[in-house]
Amino acid sequence: MQLLLLSNSTNQGEEYLGWPREILSRFIKKNNIRSCLFVPYAGVTVSWDDYTNRVSDVFGMWGCQVQSVHTVSDPVLSVNKAECIVVGGGNTFRLVQMMHETGIMAAIREKALAGTPFIGWSAGSNVACPTLCTTNDMPIIQPSSFKTLNLIPFQINPHYLDANPEGHGGETREQRINEFQALNTDIVVVGLREATALQVDNNILNLLGNRSMRLFVPGKEPVELQPGNEVSFLLKD
Amino acid sequence: MQLLLLSNSTNQGEEYLGWPREILSRFIKKNNIRSCLFVPYAGVTVSWDDYTNRVSDVFGMWGCQVQSVHTVSDPVLSVNKAECIVVGGGNTFRLVQMMHETGIMAAIREKALAGTPFIGWSAGSNVACPTLCTTNDMPIIQPSSFKTLNLIPFQINPHYLDANPEGHGGETREQRINEFQALNTDIVVVGLREATALQVDNNILNLLGNRSMRLFVPGKEPVELQPGNEVSFLLKD
Repeated sequence: MQLLLLSNSTNQGEEYLGWPREILSRFIKKNNIRSCLFVPYAGVTVSWDDYTNRVSDVFGMWGCQVQSVHTVSDPVLSVNKAECIVVGGGNTFRLVQMMHETGIMAAIREKALAGTPFIGWSAGSNVACPTLCTTNDMPIIQPSSFKTLNLIPFQINPHYLDANPEGHGGETREQRINEFQALNTDIVVVGLREATALQVDNNILNLLGNRSMRLFVPGKEPVELQPGNEVSFLLKD
Repeated sequence: MQLLLLSNSTNQGEEYLGWPREILSRFIKKNNIRSCLFVPYAGVTVSWDDYTNRVSDVFGMWGCQVQSVHTVSDPVLSVNKAECIVVGGGNTFRLVQMMHETGIMAAIREKALAGTPFIGWSAGSNVACPTLCTTNDMPIIQPSSFKTLNLIPFQINPHYLDANPEGHGGETREQRINEFQALNTDIVVVGLREATALQVDNNILNLLGNRSMRLFVPGKEPVELQPGNEVSFLLKD
């Protein structure tokens, strides 16, 4: 498998898909990708056309053509023919609801397992996990199932954040992940901070970017792992 | 109907159920409540016994006995016999999953519509709405349905928050509510700030506390409503 799972598309105040350009460029070049099928379904307050155009502008810089799955008559067939699958961020519940409804959830899983490169950011990285259960998004619509692509055996919490706004009594992200693991006692969670990514190259997992990730193994104290640390053990079930 | 819907149980750094004591005391006295059935299912990292004890300690100050629904053999029967229903906060998904699974969702709706007083905070206020769709919680478990008690015709976003932590690129609460209304174009949302509550006294709705609430009507600019402002129109479908 060839997966590139970005925590977020864009750092605050920077241009769209700004921070991961070198990472994306390298991944696209290495896998010799000249076209990709884009999944814009996580977009809610942006039209899917506009969303596709924004992504196309960036991927075009590397000579990579972008077609969106919302413009084709047979989404599953388009997945089956795709050279690369790209799943954008937005609302995870909307994304998962549409991926199930159109049948592309199962089709993308099969394709990615067969070696077709997969790129996701934010909600798009979350769907590479077993379920959507570690999303930060609001459940604005009910998907038929919380199950997702299950390409990696652990959960990513994208946009992982250490602090709460001052004076606010809500749960911290770590408390939320602890709650998840109280009910899901055998699932590892990776808190993936903004401007970092996980790359899967067959049996090798790498953390990319300049910040550590926070690893939550049920029943153990969370630990910080740095880029360059050996993390491939997380790919074993 | 007699509903008391608190945004949150506890302000940061204060004692448990500290800020709403006068509001709770008045509601309990007015409705002559001497016992209540507590729903602790939103508790995930706290045991339901411990959770019940904490609530019992506070409600005991007003001579109000607390029995928890998790300790009874027939939850629906206990709901049907209850003098008052109290639903505590925690994880909304866990709460809703258990309320459906035990059958108390339908039973509590019927009881509250028939006039039995209902008190909720945080997740417990969220379930008084048509759905769980405006919760801030992580979807740590899949409930059989997102539908909830539907006692009021609008959605509450509890712990409503204006700002994001500095330097963080995630959505603001207002953006999340905009996303909800992009897919749910006829549902009003109330952003209920911490240390405030909504009280329903038959056809009268009042905002309690010292802060305004933020009203999101689909297609309109959000507005701030102060305690004392006329908000009962929100109870009309």
